[in-house]
Amino acid sequence: MTAASAAQPIRLAVIEGDGIGHEVVPEGLNVLRAALEGSGRTLEETPFDLGAGRWHRTGETLTDADMEQLAQHDAILLGAVGDPEVPSGVLERGLLLRLRFGFDHFVNLRPTRLSPGVDSPLADPGEVDFVVVREGTEGPYVGNGGAMRVGTDLEVATEVSLNTAVGVERLVRFAFDQARSRRRKLTLVHKHNVLVHAGGLWQRIVEKVAAEHPDVAVDYLHVDAATIFLVTDPSRFDVIVTDNLFGDILTDLAGAISGGIGLAASGNINPTGAFPSMFEPVHGSAPDIAGQGIADPTATVLSVAMLLDHLGLPAQAARVRTAVDADLAGRTSGAPRSTSQIGDALAAAVRSS
Amino acid sequence: MTAASAAQPIRLAVIEGDGIGHEVVPEGLNVLRAALEGSGRTLEETPFDLGAGRWHRTGETLTDADMEQLAQHDAILLGAVGDPEVPSGVLERGLLLRLRFGFDHFVNLRPTRLSPGVDSPLADPGEVDFVVVREGTEGPYVGNGGAMRVGTDLEVATEVSLNTAVGVERLVRFAFDQARSRRRKLTLVHKHNVLVHAGGLWQRIVEKVAAEHPDVAVDYLHVDAATIFLVTDPSRFDVIVTDNLFGDILTDLAGAISGGIGLAASGNINPTGAFPSMFEPVHGSAPDIAGQGIADPTATVLSVAMLLDHLGLPAQAARVRTAVDADLAGRTSGAPRSTSQIGDALAAAVRSS
Ligand SMILES: CC(C)[C@H](C(=O)O)[C@@H](O)C(=O)O
Ligand SMILES: CC(C)[C@H](C(=O)O)[C@@H](O)C(=O)O
Repeated sequence: MTAASAAQPIRLAVIEGDGIGHEVVPEGLNVLRAALEGSGRTLEETPFDLGAGRWHRTGETLTDADMEQLAQHDAILLGAVGDPEVPSGVLERGLLLRLRFGFDHFVNLRPTRLSPGVDSPLADPGEVDFVVVREGTEGPYVGNGGAMRVGTDLEVATEVSLNTAVGVERLVRFAFDQARSRRRKLTLVHKHNVLVHAGGLWQRIVEKVAAEHPDVAVDYLHVDAATIFLVTDPSRFDVIVTDNLFGDILTDLAGAISGGIGLAASGNINPTGAFPSMFEPVHGSAPDIAGQGIADPTATVLSVAMLLDHLGLPAQAARVRTAVDADLAGRTSGAPRSTSQIGDALAAAVRSS
Repeated sequence: MTAASAAQPIRLAVIEGDGIGHEVVPEGLNVLRAALEGSGRTLEETPFDLGAGRWHRTGETLTDADMEQLAQHDAILLGAVGDPEVPSGVLERGLLLRLRFGFDHFVNLRPTRLSPGVDSPLADPGEVDFVVVREGTEGPYVGNGGAMRVGTDLEVATEVSLNTAVGVERLVRFAFDQARSRRRKLTLVHKHNVLVHAGGLWQRIVEKVAAEHPDVAVDYLHVDAATIFLVTDPSRFDVIVTDNLFGDILTDLAGAISGGIGLAASGNINPTGAFPSMFEPVHGSAPDIAGQGIADPTATVLSVAMLLDHLGLPAQAARVRTAVDADLAGRTSGAPRSTSQIGDALAAAVRSS
């Protein structure tokens, strides 16, 4: 989508973040560099010091200056942010969501695929290959809410879900485009029997856009029922389009059934190109295993593949995915490998492909 | 909880509802009558004509007069309401949620157990035996929201989640009581890193009540992470306490991993006894199989067991559960049975126990 000419380097902002972010992102870059060899494109990496570490030292989460500098880049690669010492919400609201909202990442794209050779907790998973198109800038995530009489027996706390026709329609159109490039099936997930206002808006917009796409089969599931099908019949899904909160829930579950969120990639995308899109593994900073060099960089590497697609380098993205698939298929046999061993193996496989 | 003396009959309001509700409720009553034999308690059943059928005929969902009559009862047994011809939300908001909110059913109690012999979609489910204590009268279910410029490109739709200290604390106390009668472990599920106001309220109240219950181990999971553990390690759960919407989602998933929502029972409980509590299977009216006599009445029968517990008849409840367990364990072998065959078998087993 980014219209940089072949001569220009890819300006990549790199946010390792915290915990295993410092371990998996270097391996993502390792594989990215390998994939770009011979592509005619070069990489210009700018590291950004963001996350719990900086917050502890300076009290800053993400400044206006950071946002301006990040905006000068073609894309962002993010590892994971957070540690247990930072109060809940500080980095989520002040950093992660500020990036998603500030750069208008209205598409939160989360593919789910059970690769051959990967174990699922499901006894009979069947074919698992779908993508969740999660809204990224509206819904219950907008931070519109408050509380009064906090800490007393009379406390009242609210959270407001805000949904706009413009915001829903641009996402739904993206989801239909996805469906057209896949198996042409789209499932809207919401809870319109209870959340009648927001749910009604989503449903009407899906119906409107569906009328323009007679080649795409459309159905609807309540979010509770969708969780059932994700464990009893995941092959029924091709494209799921859903709101910010339901998408958050469904994609963790989707990650779990397809081998764990250690393998789940995501893209926070602004398809207009007005702002840099951001690619990140779905997992967190995993403080329990950080610093040991044992984190699996695969989710970051698959996020790099999404980044390559986004930069208009689908052949390079495909080589990365092929390397990952081959690596996953061979895992059952071998001894456990370190983060960098996996990264090196993937980079070598990409180079020789 | 109901303080009726042994001499008084149990005044039970019966709402078959729609679809398979007409088939499973009679079998629930069949087993209930069997369980009450010899208990010294008699049953006085009052049928209520509520659901899609009545709405189609009269346009009424649930009138004030219905509510007044229902309030004269010790408890309510409900099958399922809804059919595809009723617009989404009409019966949910006008009937089901009106009952839950009108009778202040602040505890929505949903036990999950994988009985021996029952298949799970999980390859290695382990011990599945937990209870979800779902809030029933607050959160995103309150119906507080709206929309403007409906149907235009400028539409804005909101949904407001309302949460009160009083509402959360009474539920949390109930959940700690449950934990004390079980394995003494309680997990709060919310999303306090994003929904900071509501999530903060829930967390502070759980911490406060936890301090009074040092014998209960307490932990916390974000709702997205909770779905992962439900498929990778459900044995980690004993009591889950959560809000209305998260509870809706988690209990469908919980039903799925424990053999399907065809086996999942629930109680909408007002523990104060100020209003009748209501017991219902988690499944819906299943129009696709209605009228064929093939619906499984087990979820309704297990809801009857919860009703017996609630009425202060734990020995009778235990006999019903034992009969269900034995029946489930024997199912792998036999030919498929009809709704009434299963009901008759369970009633006979209860009688002879
Ligand atoms: C960390 C948190 C704010 C985030 C979310 O809820 O979106 C995460 O769970 C995710 O899915 O990327
Ligand atoms: C029918 C619907 C309103 C209801 C709910 O969302 O609570 C159902 O899904 C349930 O879980 O009992």
